[in-house]
Amino acid sequence: MQDHMKAAIFIEPGRIILGEKPIPVIGTLDALIRITMTTICGTDVHILKGEYPVSRGLTLGHEPVGVIEKLGSAVEGFTVGQRVITGAITPSGTSYASLAGCHSQCGRMEGSGWRATGGWQFGNTIDGAQAEYLRVPDAMANLTPVPDGLTDEQVLMCPDILSTGFAGAESGRVSIGDMVAVFAQGPIGLCATAGARLMGASLIIAVESLPDRMAMARKMGADHVIDFARQDPVAEIRRLTNGRGVDVAIEALGQQATFEAALRVLRPGGTLSSLGVYSEDLTIPIDAFAAGLGDNHIATTLCPGGKERMRRLMGMVASGRIDTTSLITHHFALDDIESAYDLFAHQRDGVVKVAIRP
Amino acid sequence: MQDHMKAAIFIEPGRIILGEKPIPVIGTLDALIRITMTTICGTDVHILKGEYPVSRGLTLGHEPVGVIEKLGSAVEGFTVGQRVITGAITPSGTSYASLAGCHSQCGRMEGSGWRATGGWQFGNTIDGAQAEYLRVPDAMANLTPVPDGLTDEQVLMCPDILSTGFAGAESGRVSIGDMVAVFAQGPIGLCATAGARLMGASLIIAVESLPDRMAMARKMGADHVIDFARQDPVAEIRRLTNGRGVDVAIEALGQQATFEAALRVLRPGGTLSSLGVYSEDLTIPIDAFAAGLGDNHIATTLCPGGKERMRRLMGMVASGRIDTTSLITHHFALDDIESAYDLFAHQRDGVVKVAIRP
Amino acid sequence: MQDHMKAAIFIEPGRIILGEKPIPVIGTLDALIRITMTTICGTDVHILKGEYPVSRGLTLGHEPVGVIEKLGSAVEGFTVGQRVITGAITPSGTSYASLAGCHSQCGRMEGSGWRATGGWQFGNTIDGAQAEYLRVPDAMANLTPVPDGLTDEQVLMCPDILSTGFAGAESGRVSIGDMVAVFAQGPIGLCATAGARLMGASLIIAVESLPDRMAMARKMGADHVIDFARQDPVAEIRRLTNGRGVDVAIEALGQQATFEAALRVLRPGGTLSSLGVYSEDLTIPIDAFAAGLGDNHIATTLCPGGKERMRRLMGMVASGRIDTTSLITHHFALDDIESAYDLFAHQRDGVVKVAIRP
Amino acid sequence: MQDHMKAAIFIEPGRIILGEKPIPVIGTLDALIRITMTTICGTDVHILKGEYPVSRGLTLGHEPVGVIEKLGSAVEGFTVGQRVITGAITPSGTSYASLAGCHSQCGRMEGSGWRATGGWQFGNTIDGAQAEYLRVPDAMANLTPVPDGLTDEQVLMCPDILSTGFAGAESGRVSIGDMVAVFAQGPIGLCATAGARLMGASLIIAVESLPDRMAMARKMGADHVIDFARQDPVAEIRRLTNGRGVDVAIEALGQQATFEAALRVLRPGGTLSSLGVYSEDLTIPIDAFAAGLGDNHIATTLCPGGKERMRRLMGMVASGRIDTTSLITHHFALDDIESAYDLFAHQRDGVVKVAIRP
Repeated sequence: MQDHMKAAIFIEPGRIILGEKPIPVIGTLDALIRITMTTICGTDVHILKGEYPVSRGLTLGHEPVGVIEKLGSAVEGFTVGQRVITGAITPSGTSYASLAGCHSQCGRMEGSGWRATGGWQFGNTIDGAQAEYLRVPDAMANLTPVPDGLTDEQVLMCPDILSTGFAGAESGRVSIGDMVAVFAQGPIGLCATAGARLMGASLIIAVESLPDRMAMARKMGADHVIDFARQDPVAEIRRLTNGRGVDVAIEALGQQATFEAALRVLRPGGTLSSLGVYSEDLTIPIDAFAAGLGDNHIATTLCPGGKERMRRLMGMVASGRIDTTSLITHHFALDDIESAYDLFAHQRDGVVKVAIRP
Repeated sequence: MQDHMKAAIFIEPGRIILGEKPIPVIGTLDALIRITMTTICGTDVHILKGEYPVSRGLTLGHEPVGVIEKLGSAVEGFTVGQRVITGAITPSGTSYASLAGCHSQCGRMEGSGWRATGGWQFGNTIDGAQAEYLRVPDAMANLTPVPDGLTDEQVLMCPDILSTGFAGAESGRVSIGDMVAVFAQGPIGLCATAGARLMGASLIIAVESLPDRMAMARKMGADHVIDFARQDPVAEIRRLTNGRGVDVAIEALGQQATFEAALRVLRPGGTLSSLGVYSEDLTIPIDAFAAGLGDNHIATTLCPGGKERMRRLMGMVASGRIDTTSLITHHFALDDIESAYDLFAHQRDGVVKVAIRP
Repeated sequence: MQDHMKAAIFIEPGRIILGEKPIPVIGTLDALIRITMTTICGTDVHILKGEYPVSRGLTLGHEPVGVIEKLGSAVEGFTVGQRVITGAITPSGTSYASLAGCHSQCGRMEGSGWRATGGWQFGNTIDGAQAEYLRVPDAMANLTPVPDGLTDEQVLMCPDILSTGFAGAESGRVSIGDMVAVFAQGPIGLCATAGARLMGASLIIAVESLPDRMAMARKMGADHVIDFARQDPVAEIRRLTNGRGVDVAIEALGQQATFEAALRVLRPGGTLSSLGVYSEDLTIPIDAFAAGLGDNHIATTLCPGGKERMRRLMGMVASGRIDTTSLITHHFALDDIESAYDLFAHQRDGVVKVAIRP
Repeated sequence: MQDHMKAAIFIEPGRIILGEKPIPVIGTLDALIRITMTTICGTDVHILKGEYPVSRGLTLGHEPVGVIEKLGSAVEGFTVGQRVITGAITPSGTSYASLAGCHSQCGRMEGSGWRATGGWQFGNTIDGAQAEYLRVPDAMANLTPVPDGLTDEQVLMCPDILSTGFAGAESGRVSIGDMVAVFAQGPIGLCATAGARLMGASLIIAVESLPDRMAMARKMGADHVIDFARQDPVAEIRRLTNGRGVDVAIEALGQQATFEAALRVLRPGGTLSSLGVYSEDLTIPIDAFAAGLGDNHIATTLCPGGKERMRRLMGMVASGRIDTTSLITHHFALDDIESAYDLFAHQRDGVVKVAIRP
């Protein structure tokens, strides 16, 4: 094994390069995995654009599929050579937050044990997965063996996109017979649509305007897809629900317009499940909020992580309940990741997700 | 029984008078109750000020204690002469919303069965309780016998204040060991404080600046009371929770400042339980919202009604778990209700709640 | 309209006949529906056999599809001639139990407002649906319009079988990625299998031995079907779950053997969701119960009713999420209902459910 | 520091002696704590009597209060000399079960990650707390600093009794206004009574016959205490709830009689929350179970552990919400633990709990 590796490094806003870094050194509770496939997330593009700040010199990426290369001395229950994934969120399992089940807000190093978004470390507070090797902290809580027979492509969406998208439906507590609207059908919105379908919604209305994504939305389970460039989604959703509104509206973009529309299509007592990463203050129009008397809920959710979550998601893939391989529209070698960022950031060529192979 | 009765009538913004009206005629499913005690709510003051629109000529008031005078022909299970209360919210029990457990958003007359705040009828969409007699719709779902031995004063807060305040803690899902902040200690905030205490919070921090209400807050269960006129409540709550923030923050005023402060004191993954009636758009500062990634929840709650709710609340009063008689700072005859409005609207003389007796 | 009608009447244990009865007279809150299709339930067979006692002379049946013939004077929101169904369980909506959301245990006439299984009236405590006409109590809470385009056959399972079966999965709180076992694949077990699939289970193991039902189980969503006559289901389920056990086990038969096996296949902390109607005391083997320390749950569920439930179920049918027409293996005229009972009670000729048409 | 220590050792059924053992050697993730106070649990008496099997030579006890003596090399966030407690249940935090929030069923060493009662290690599968020193596995997930100002006596019940007792109310989902019955008022039943009170029950009925414990039950929050030696608790609870039954019945003994009585006093739809350790098969009488149609729940709960739980419980002690010092009726030196066992096992001299000090 050589000493150095290739990695996609954040240099400064507007600039991510493929560079060289030492292969990570692991600690007692860590694992080193050799990446066999990874991808680029919309959040990485936010970082690229300088909209979400991270340290210069950081390796980006939080969606790893790979093989265990080395295990910390205290790590039990895994073996070198196992194929694994790790969630984008890597909770410690042992912080106060984790023990309370709030894994994504794990603040292992905080006195209180809680830190907002603290569970998201890869490509945010520690080096990430767009590299040849990745150090996985708290390996026992996070490494998850890939079931036999599943390809890298089949599980590539589990670490983030699928976990987040499903969580949109889960946090909305979608139940049998619910009507659900999903705003935006990017990778996460598509998985939210699939999640609403898997949880028993009787009517799923997706909102999107790119024709490819509109078609994918139907494939992932939407009954209706509203092209917001041609129709007012609020009026149309009201119409489709006989004036009642939806039980659950899922926001999967991170903008005021979709947040507000999601509020406006709720039935009284309905839930807005928000997945978007917002970059500006949000406004709640008081008329869409029944002056605070509508028994409405707003739930925000960060991608659930940890090996139990990953095990369950891969179980869904293994039994054929969900197939996200069609979201992978393009393939790149790690050597070409700069081109991949260029394509993905500009949403050219109908890209939904790219697969990156070291 | 005479034909006419006295009633507090909304004439126009700024003007509520004691006038005369025919005693209500009841339908098959209704009951007529003779009011023995009622009160004025902050919402009535919103109506008086023209901040919340209702029809001119409406009798106000939604907090009735009384005696059954007459029963509609289809009403079973009650007898004339029984002492009863009725919640401020009078669900039908038979609408789609009610059958879904969403009683406050009951839209009995809507095609869909749902209407935002539709369960609130008294003094909003039908004549209310500040009168000698009150027509109670859907009587079987709403009349609730007062347990023997309880006075009118003891149960006067059950129809609205106590139900709403407790619901602030309930919608926040306060559990044993939670830390809770309650913003504003008016009648509803005080009952929210009591509710948080009754549900097992280990630390309750109330925010208020009127000395009388600060003292009452301690009596209702607050461990700390922050005078926001002298201290920054956000900083102080952070300090009292060792930097972590509270599990649940309850907003009981209906203003941007308290809504925003409630967001800012939450621990990651915490819940903002909002009881306030807002009159302007709300802003969610993105930094207080972890960009939408904090696993936070915002729940709004309208006063729960219906006879099962009232039965449970009176059970709490009967067993001494809660005593709200100290909230009644002033007594008036119905004949003097205009003076009562004047005192209450201007919060003079340390008023918290007034008791009105026809 | 004539005065009398045909009805399937319970004469005594072992004897149900097609007889004549007066068409029901309706009260203020009732509706009269003309039955267009109904069916026979396993519970009716229990009644026939004398295993579940009802009054002699009672009309049986609790699964009505029909047309509104007449409405009580206080019933609003419906019109004569509408096609409707009504749940097997007809809650009042206005009892303490109903207002608490516990509709199936509604005790409208009880002082307390609660009665065990009190929501089940048709063919149990009042005349039922195996007749030309049916009186529906508390019509506003129970009549549910059939969406345009749905046939009687398509909605025939909604009143009981589908509602009960789905409730098995719902009470088990099946969530995305769960492993679920369903014991017995009669009509209710088949719908429980479908419910587990609709709620996101990643692995569904059905247990059955009749070949036709084993095939149907696969069609309704089972990944594996264990023939208990050939394999030990407990050992096989342990094997299929890698020794861990299932998250949720659904009992859909009502016998000690299946109840006990359901307990034995649970993972620690798992839930046994019981739908069966038991006729003898049950035993919990202490070794299958971790001495009471396994964090296990046992939930029993009676068919959910009321119009909101029926609306949601028909929404699932309308959007193609579930199709139960294949469960209807035989058709009979009401005139031949005695033959239908004979066939169904003896489970001859691969019968699953019969459709009865007056 | 010497090499050896004193410890209460299980020799064989009927025989626990104070012996000598090497001070435990700790691993990377462990901590060593010097015990300053511990106690004896009813489960230890089961072990003594041979009713619950453990390895011969095991040190008993699972309720440690102490001071950190040594930390494993990978343990962060704690310092030698800190006063700490550790729950009776010591989850890893990193197993599949723990990550699913099912800490008490943590199977760190199992392939599946789950093991029934696997979280209970002290005095069960590894050496326990009735000794001068204790090795704490997975120290980061389990060590919990004692808040300043709290004595050993004040926190001694947190590791097991208080956590278990409260969990009885929590698993029963006691909510504001519920009526609750608690069967048996030993240490755990008394804490269940306190828990029901803290969660907002309006009526708490305790069942017990020892006069001292009956008096304590009132002090912990019971409104009524039924002496089962003089009155039939089922009939009496029915009477006190006006024939309706209780919303939640908590079983805190572990016998058929109390389990069955708990079932019989439930209202339809009510929950039996079981805490007892049963040593024989249980019977569910079908008449008390509404033939499986009563919408009843049975929940069993093993003591919740982990440092977040301990932090919350000590928060309740620190704010004065609960005081369990009165349960400590006797004090012993560790040297006299054989006498302590003798007293406790025979329930002599009004003993509730003993405090043992090395």
